[in-house]
Amino acid sequence: MSDGADIAELAKRRGFFFGANEAYGGVAGFYTFGPEGAALKRNVEAAWRDRFTVREGNDEIESPTIAPEAVFEASGHLDGFDDMLVECGECGESHRADHLIEDASDIEEAESLPIPEVEELIAAYEVACPTCGAALAGRSIEEFNLMFATSIGPGSGQPGYLRPETAQGIFVEFPRLKEYARNTLPFGITQIGRAYRNEISPRKGIVRTREFTQAELEQFVDPDTDEPPLSRVADVPLRLYPADEQEDPDGEYVEATVREAVAEGIVASDWVAYYLGVAREWYERIGVDGDRFRFRQHLPGERAHYAADCWDAESEVSGAVEDHEDPADGDWIEIAGFAYRGDYDLSKHAEHGDDDFTVFQQYDEPRTVERAVVDPDMSVLGPAFGGQAGDVADALRDLAARDPDAFEGETVAVEVDGEEVTVDTDVANFRIEEQTEAGEHVTPHVVEPSFGVDRTVYTLLAHAYDEDRIDGEERTYLSLSPEVAPTDVAVFPLVGEAALEELADGVVADLRAAGLSVAHDDSGNIGRRYRRQDEVGTPLSVTVDHESVEEAPMTVTVRDRDTTAQVRVPVDELATELEGVLAAGGSFERLLETYDRVDTDVTRS
Amino acid sequence: MSDGADIAELAKRRGFFFGANEAYGGVAGFYTFGPEGAALKRNVEAAWRDRFTVREGNDEIESPTIAPEAVFEASGHLDGFDDMLVECGECGESHRADHLIEDASDIEEAESLPIPEVEELIAAYEVACPTCGAALAGRSIEEFNLMFATSIGPGSGQPGYLRPETAQGIFVEFPRLKEYARNTLPFGITQIGRAYRNEISPRKGIVRTREFTQAELEQFVDPDTDEPPLSRVADVPLRLYPADEQEDPDGEYVEATVREAVAEGIVASDWVAYYLGVAREWYERIGVDGDRFRFRQHLPGERAHYAADCWDAESEVSGAVEDHEDPADGDWIEIAGFAYRGDYDLSKHAEHGDDDFTVFQQYDEPRTVERAVVDPDMSVLGPAFGGQAGDVADALRDLAARDPDAFEGETVAVEVDGEEVTVDTDVANFRIEEQTEAGEHVTPHVVEPSFGVDRTVYTLLAHAYDEDRIDGEERTYLSLSPEVAPTDVAVFPLVGEAALEELADGVVADLRAAGLSVAHDDSGNIGRRYRRQDEVGTPLSVTVDHESVEEAPMTVTVRDRDTTAQVRVPVDELATELEGVLAAGGSFERLLETYDRVDTDVTRS
Repeated sequence: MSDGADIAELAKRRGFFFGANEAYGGVAGFYTFGPEGAALKRNVEAAWRDRFTVREGNDEIESPTIAPEAVFEASGHLDGFDDMLVECGECGESHRADHLIEDASDIEEAESLPIPEVEELIAAYEVACPTCGAALAGRSIEEFNLMFATSIGPGSGQPGYLRPETAQGIFVEFPRLKEYARNTLPFGITQIGRAYRNEISPRKGIVRTREFTQAELEQFVDPDTDEPPLSRVADVPLRLYPADEQEDPDGEYVEATVREAVAEGIVASDWVAYYLGVAREWYERIGVDGDRFRFRQHLPGERAHYAADCWDAESEVSGAVEDHEDPADGDWIEIAGFAYRGDYDLSKHAEHGDDDFTVFQQYDEPRTVERAVVDPDMSVLGPAFGGQAGDVADALRDLAARDPDAFEGETVAVEVDGEEVTVDTDVANFRIEEQTEAGEHVTPHVVEPSFGVDRTVYTLLAHAYDEDRIDGEERTYLSLSPEVAPTDVAVFPLVGEAALEELADGVVADLRAAGLSVAHDDSGNIGRRYRRQDEVGTPLSVTVDHESVEEAPMTVTVRDRDTTAQVRVPVDELATELEGVLAAGGSFERLLETYDRVDTDVTRS
Repeated sequence: MSDGADIAELAKRRGFFFGANEAYGGVAGFYTFGPEGAALKRNVEAAWRDRFTVREGNDEIESPTIAPEAVFEASGHLDGFDDMLVECGECGESHRADHLIEDASDIEEAESLPIPEVEELIAAYEVACPTCGAALAGRSIEEFNLMFATSIGPGSGQPGYLRPETAQGIFVEFPRLKEYARNTLPFGITQIGRAYRNEISPRKGIVRTREFTQAELEQFVDPDTDEPPLSRVADVPLRLYPADEQEDPDGEYVEATVREAVAEGIVASDWVAYYLGVAREWYERIGVDGDRFRFRQHLPGERAHYAADCWDAESEVSGAVEDHEDPADGDWIEIAGFAYRGDYDLSKHAEHGDDDFTVFQQYDEPRTVERAVVDPDMSVLGPAFGGQAGDVADALRDLAARDPDAFEGETVAVEVDGEEVTVDTDVANFRIEEQTEAGEHVTPHVVEPSFGVDRTVYTLLAHAYDEDRIDGEERTYLSLSPEVAPTDVAVFPLVGEAALEELADGVVADLRAAGLSVAHDDSGNIGRRYRRQDEVGTPLSVTVDHESVEEAPMTVTVRDRDTTAQVRVPVDELATELEGVLAAGGSFERLLETYDRVDTDVTRS
């Protein structure tokens, strides 16, 4: 169990992450991943790619992080991607008004409140500037756009923005991506890459930064015909926190399988439910603690107007939770979002962009459909309406498609240039025609599982962080899953003896040839080396000692990070055995059954 | 053989890369990698990581792409990272003046010329605006900074820039990175990530873009004691194009091994020579054609003033080279740079930043050194110089360290506040003392191999592009190395028969379980599927046909991309055999020796 300060300290000391550019005072919201953190992050990305791209049969792309203004006009980010900014009249510091309200009251999700209400709440709760303590009542709140702006090209250039999400780089290229998918729905496109939000006052370390990494999947589906392969995850158990339970002071979690969640309508979209199941399995696989994990539904005010349903994956990162059954307990952060976005994104780009954002869906067999059509008699309309005759004819065609019943009377009325004109129904030549259609143009709907990679990394550190006492000494260790641990195996030769160092070199080479990531550490006493590897979560340590070269066959000790149990394993069998342990998620059971246990307290040698 | 248009067309049609945001008219210099290109690029990055990070024992980090202004003040990018901009007086279009000169004359590397000279050359060569044709003579040339600027935080914020190279993110964190390296030289830090240059007029497709990916290694060394492991690459042959050969109209390549290049002083730094050897091997491994590859030394005018020696790796991408021995022939692009940067980077950050950019290098045993010291008699200096006495004493101490000989006369002169003052040498109490020192603070020197990932991808496509005729039909294929090819194996079932589709599903699952990347393609006739896979460079195709299920044991056909040779392989042996082919760089020899060759022209079925 840990708190944020423990993790930040360990992260800095051991090279997971630290504030960037500290030699220049740093800038809030920017972090650098050191060697251990970058390796952990890469492993998380690889595990995500394996699950959400490869195994789902999706394709991954890489789009630029800078895009021109027109893209964000279409997506709505230029106008709507704002936070509430309040500036202190005394010290001039800027703060997020909604966060100040949340800190000062029991109100949650103040982000969804209208500005005048937030201004009133600031006065009502007598909110003070966190920097200088001056009262903020009466200060006006402004919308602050969170996109980083830049200028592309020489001179005044053209406006561009750093993408606030990787998703737009997928939507905007849909016309080409559908070709690579051979114009067949459903298909999914993924992207892992940097995204940027110019947060007003970043806080919480790497949980809320200005530059971060997303892993996003845009699943394009035909809403009428495509169904997810629900059976694959039907029995996955979900801990759900629906909106109505959040609004109830005594609200509780709902525990349901994916199948139940869909059948009982707790999760409205079966595509969303499918990905909740996939995600739940994936989080468990990489080492997220199921007791400190939940899916929380967006409250009505949180949800974008076009999103039919939206759930966040949340993890508890305080380490101080007493009762895992009580939703009110703990420090929960959003680590992923699952939204049914309908046709909003592609429709917006179709409206603003100059390309075809639909897919032609061929019917199984051609269909005969009845269509209301008109064929206006221009020899009558011409003399009657002069230059407007063409517009009248167009208006009649639109009306026929929209409201065939309007043609049932003797006359029919349409609006042209703001004025109503009346035409004899006979002149319109209205009729119902049978047409044969091979298919139709469908604007695909989008299901979007969107993951925050940095927050996932942070969650893994928080859930892996542990302390115990070994032989009377305090120890900190990270019980990271072997799939994401920066290093698989550390090899320690006792120093100063050529034979031992040579054997260690051979062991390292063998293990690397077997595809394991290996650290070769010959600095400091063995106890210090164990501590170092425990703190970066290396599952296995191999020590080459005097006995190694005195025995035949040669053996080395293998130590289990979590239990510190040790066994002697012949060098010839080492690579195979360690691969087996790692493939079994780090389980040391087989080694304990097969080999001699070592009781020597090697940690003190 | 190919030209750029062929590659651009194939890249767009098959999903390697294409201009981004085309639905909005696009913006020059931004490209999106589609599914095939993103996979190829990831494979190149993984191969680079394996060679330059893992096998070299280096560590990889991830730093932000945005950094505050102070970092680029220190690095010199704020003042010196400019291109020459000339704006047309008629149409207002901006151009790179040095490129216009190069296009209009035989002058190379016009970038290194002073502005007034370029202005004169524009007049002398009567250079016209490429957009509208107006004369540019008389237009003034301006320095245009290539960094993308943005603003961090609310209000007017603080200035920040998108990094023009990943390297600064390593240099600026050196004080922390040296701790992770346990304060021991040499050590190397790598980073793979986006970098940004606001090019005046991007051209040449993905060869010169505004957003691109670099793979950089910063090797930190003690210049006095650290030597590279030259023996590992001593016999690697290098095609070198030294500066003096470039300046000679009849200049030729120098062919030398790494050992010879160092021994004969062709490459000045043995660290640079080491990495030229490592890079040469790596390029060959991933599929760069050795005949279309060279190392070109920077001309004196090209080189940064602090770089002792600098070589570029260049590839020929036109496909139209007749004589590979003639340096003047072909269209060469820079794909990597290898620079000995001395202590420039760390010294600059030490000067501007507030941290320790040195490493304390412990001597093997403490050393006794002689130091010139003074111990000025303040009872004399005080009355003589009053308030300046302290400054005079400091000046004497500095002088003793700098120039002990100055104390040999009766009097000694120092400058204080711009005025020379003279002191009796006796009063200074000058003497030589013996001091014992355990080590010294060393500012490490930097050796920087820096790779352009996008240009490497482009080179691989250009060198892999080939056309031939198969059974009378023209075919385009990419002979990509299996290590970088987007897909290892494509599996094609003949469609419409459940048994064949089921068997194909099983084959796909087996191959994926063996760790291969597999495309499952059941769309279109087999010939079309072969063409598709040939064009994206998939080394092996497996077809499941009627014979597959009629025989015992069941067999499938395996087809070699480059020769289109086919053999029948039992399903049980398939995964092992294909792994073998891929591990052998795609060589089909073993399969041809072991299995029955198929003569049927499956491409026409």
